[in-house]
Amino acid sequence: MKDVLYDNPEFFRKYSQMYRSQHGLAGAGEWPSLKPLLPEFKGKRVLDLGCGYGWHCAYAARHGAVQVLGVDNSRKMLDTAQEKNSLPQIEYRCASIEQLELPNESFDVVFSSLALHYLPDYPALVRRVKDWLVPGGDFIFSVEHPVFTAQGPQDWVYGPKGEILYFPVDDYFYEGQREAVFLGEKMVKYHRTLTTYLDTLLQQGFRLRRVVEPQPPQSMMDLPGMKDEMRRPMMLLVAAEKE
Amino acid sequence: MKDVLYDNPEFFRKYSQMYRSQHGLAGAGEWPSLKPLLPEFKGKRVLDLGCGYGWHCAYAARHGAVQVLGVDNSRKMLDTAQEKNSLPQIEYRCASIEQLELPNESFDVVFSSLALHYLPDYPALVRRVKDWLVPGGDFIFSVEHPVFTAQGPQDWVYGPKGEILYFPVDDYFYEGQREAVFLGEKMVKYHRTLTTYLDTLLQQGFRLRRVVEPQPPQSMMDLPGMKDEMRRPMMLLVAAEKE
Repeated sequence: MKDVLYDNPEFFRKYSQMYRSQHGLAGAGEWPSLKPLLPEFKGKRVLDLGCGYGWHCAYAARHGAVQVLGVDNSRKMLDTAQEKNSLPQIEYRCASIEQLELPNESFDVVFSSLALHYLPDYPALVRRVKDWLVPGGDFIFSVEHPVFTAQGPQDWVYGPKGEILYFPVDDYFYEGQREAVFLGEKMVKYHRTLTTYLDTLLQQGFRLRRVVEPQPPQSMMDLPGMKDEMRRPMMLLVAAEKE
Repeated sequence: MKDVLYDNPEFFRKYSQMYRSQHGLAGAGEWPSLKPLLPEFKGKRVLDLGCGYGWHCAYAARHGAVQVLGVDNSRKMLDTAQEKNSLPQIEYRCASIEQLELPNESFDVVFSSLALHYLPDYPALVRRVKDWLVPGGDFIFSVEHPVFTAQGPQDWVYGPKGEILYFPVDDYFYEGQREAVFLGEKMVKYHRTLTTYLDTLLQQGFRLRRVVEPQPPQSMMDLPGMKDEMRRPMMLLVAAEKE
């Protein structure tokens, strides 16, 4: 397995101090937009790709999921998941999403929060998710928005006084690897177009149920930088159904 | 009816000199991406909202549509449509899209090319299109991409030597009126998010068939400025079906 950034102690320390890491779902700006996209979990078998601290696994379990598999490639993340979000229905497994092997039609719901932009091959993942899901199963995910990933550095353009001028978009149709800085560490992400995110699903036999770009909730508007989140989309939420 | 920009003689003259105005469908960079999204036209009744010169009306008629209604608010555009694209199945009607009244379930296909970003109320239009379509009917449209309309001026940011640096995105979640300059004339367009374009359809009972951001075709890559079109999305193509 490759070097896992989330296992780097310094990065992990900074990640653990983020508002969303400390406050769980309630601390994630997109949660009020994401929650209505989730299916009924009662009696369902749920797979969470890139589960991190396990907040969504615990949410699914507490809402009736009978079996939840949380997958992440960071041991440190999973240690915290065990500590904060351990429930009898949940199994946490340390594995890279790309190498994961699971039986066909063994899940009712596949979920992924902010992980798929780390994968180089999205169409391949969509094919595998389709295999793992039962017919009528749900695939719900959030990713960084193509506007946010296009240029690479993921930073605003600033004016002479350090004020934000606008957000730069470049190289939009050149998909692939980008190097961004997150919490002071260089990390590789993959930019892909909106067409790739959505049309791949449509062409591979998924039906789109919802497509949402979350806006910052009113209740968080006073957090530092939150008002600027009205100026460009940062995330894309998608709910699809295997036909 | 409001002042119609496309009836302004100077604007109309410049518009008529554009590559896409002179070469019809073959001159429109998005046509190779749009064509595969069109339904079978044989035996269909087709409505074209903002039909302009009537290129798409003629295409539908030549591919078997039995009745085509092309609507535009510019007399001058319709005069050219009559001249260039007159066929017995086609009726051209001078009307604003917003004031158009048509019987329920009277069309099999509603089409619109680059016109809906001139309308202030998109959800209202979607409701009306749904009324006009038969169940299973198709709604296919192109609009300017939310990335392209967000900030307003629709221009690149340039470096000291006049070179393109990137495309600016701003005020993304503040939907509404923008003032852009097109062919030297100020014009009002309406910015809306991708969420509004797509999720409105999903929530109003349309099924998405395709979502495509057209890239410039290889064959046009040597036209001035065409390579830069790889750097940001300018259009969004959507094919949906009334359920």
